[in-house]
Amino acid sequence: MPATLIDGKHYSAEVKARVAVGVEALKAQHGITPALAVVLVGEDPASKVYVASKGRACAEVGIRSIEHRLPETTSEDKLLALVRQLNDDPEVSGILVQFPVPAQISQQAVINTIDPLKDVDGLHPLNAGRLASGLDAMVPCTPYGAYLMLKGVRDDLSGLKALVIGRSNLVGKPVAQLLLKENCTVTMAHSRTKDLRAEARAADILVAAIGRPHFVQADWVKPGALVIDVGINRIPAPEKGEGKTRLVGDVDFTPASEIAGAITPVPGGVGLMTVACLMRNTLIAAHRQAGLADPAV
Amino acid sequence: MPATLIDGKHYSAEVKARVAVGVEALKAQHGITPALAVVLVGEDPASKVYVASKGRACAEVGIRSIEHRLPETTSEDKLLALVRQLNDDPEVSGILVQFPVPAQISQQAVINTIDPLKDVDGLHPLNAGRLASGLDAMVPCTPYGAYLMLKGVRDDLSGLKALVIGRSNLVGKPVAQLLLKENCTVTMAHSRTKDLRAEARAADILVAAIGRPHFVQADWVKPGALVIDVGINRIPAPEKGEGKTRLVGDVDFTPASEIAGAITPVPGGVGLMTVACLMRNTLIAAHRQAGLADPAV
Repeated sequence: MPATLIDGKHYSAEVKARVAVGVEALKAQHGITPALAVVLVGEDPASKVYVASKGRACAEVGIRSIEHRLPETTSEDKLLALVRQLNDDPEVSGILVQFPVPAQISQQAVINTIDPLKDVDGLHPLNAGRLASGLDAMVPCTPYGAYLMLKGVRDDLSGLKALVIGRSNLVGKPVAQLLLKENCTVTMAHSRTKDLRAEARAADILVAAIGRPHFVQADWVKPGALVIDVGINRIPAPEKGEGKTRLVGDVDFTPASEIAGAITPVPGGVGLMTVACLMRNTLIAAHRQAGLADPAV
Repeated sequence: MPATLIDGKHYSAEVKARVAVGVEALKAQHGITPALAVVLVGEDPASKVYVASKGRACAEVGIRSIEHRLPETTSEDKLLALVRQLNDDPEVSGILVQFPVPAQISQQAVINTIDPLKDVDGLHPLNAGRLASGLDAMVPCTPYGAYLMLKGVRDDLSGLKALVIGRSNLVGKPVAQLLLKENCTVTMAHSRTKDLRAEARAADILVAAIGRPHFVQADWVKPGALVIDVGINRIPAPEKGEGKTRLVGDVDFTPASEIAGAITPVPGGVGLMTVACLMRNTLIAAHRQAGLADPAV
């Protein structure tokens, strides 16, 4: 593969190392230990895995981890009451409610209730609007991770044509805002886009955030393009044994890596940045709540 | 000119007529008269003209107009105190502080202080974020006016390629969000975009919001494209006499109208929609503050 591999392990270790230094400094200079409260409702196995990995990352960087596990039958009122209690708790720097929540709870109501200053997922409309308006915001973790990887490969993105496939509030839209701020010419594409292949082939930066395994074919990639694959899809892997599965991205990695200039793998790419950037957001949130300038992380 | 003229007079009259009906119904059914508070700081002649035109539009549709004129030397504290007083006043449905404000006042501080529910300019980050997140928002007036004109020309915009030139919080970014919601493939271009002409020529919808007279040349326009010219630029018009000026848009209208499928003129285009949509926002704000469903305007 002629493409440079954009290694999530390397980039996420760098972010976590910077966060660990920042946490240490905040403790030493201001006596503040940042704390992340993670709320898990129900027993979804994937969610449990994510929550556990967040706990491990906290331990790694010196952030205090607080876990709240609520039963599957928890009412919306009860969950919102817990969120408000965490909003009011001066010991809590960041709040993350693990999505999806059970059907009796409105995800948007949860998002709207989290104090924007503690909204380390960056999903509150105020944070989306602050990002769009060019103001300090809590930026969603996955898009920021993708952004850091792009900046790592090529510091000056100005004037590059970027195509973002997928327009979710969690990934596509914030990625577009971050790239626009870097002076890219940004196109937002989605399921209704005509001739997605032609759009992709014109892009110097290609961000795939659709959630469809191997959706982006190698001949969609412009030679030399920077390709960021945000998709994490589980597909059958009979070659590993009956009933076995494996993770793949939205990009058909092996052939695409013959054409791209740099590309993220799945697994081992953007996914690792999400948790690292969650640690980063928690540290930033702790600074802002204490009236301190943002740390250099 | 083979292009259909997208007539701002026609569209703005339609909007104002619908608003007038809505105001009448709100008065008759709920005893509520919507009121718009306009705050003007200083003596800028253009601002005075705008404020006067807003007052006339209010009278036309039955909205109560409240004007606050403050001296050029007004402090930020004093202006913010007035904004807070208007926030708390149950008689006031919408608040518009005429920009620019004098240099001693932070425009962003003013924007952040206005109650998002009364933010009829749609500039508060919470409204920008609610728009970006696909939630009910106060949408800035000029972008919404541009959007209504496009929808008037062609109801189904799905799959069309749209190019928005200019990325201001007031126009470019919200236009892009509105077109994305309509399932357009949306590209955001700006001063750092390479080969803007090629980008423009590929666009089924071209929105120019740069503020540079006749910046968009006729040969940038794709044959049959819908062209929305948001620019309002004053240029010398020696043909009208010494020292005379005239208004032109960002698009070189006369030759472009030979190529476009439909095009807005300047003056007489989007500009007229801004005030009409301000009336619309004020009516919507009055409904939301009263806990009523949005009116069909």
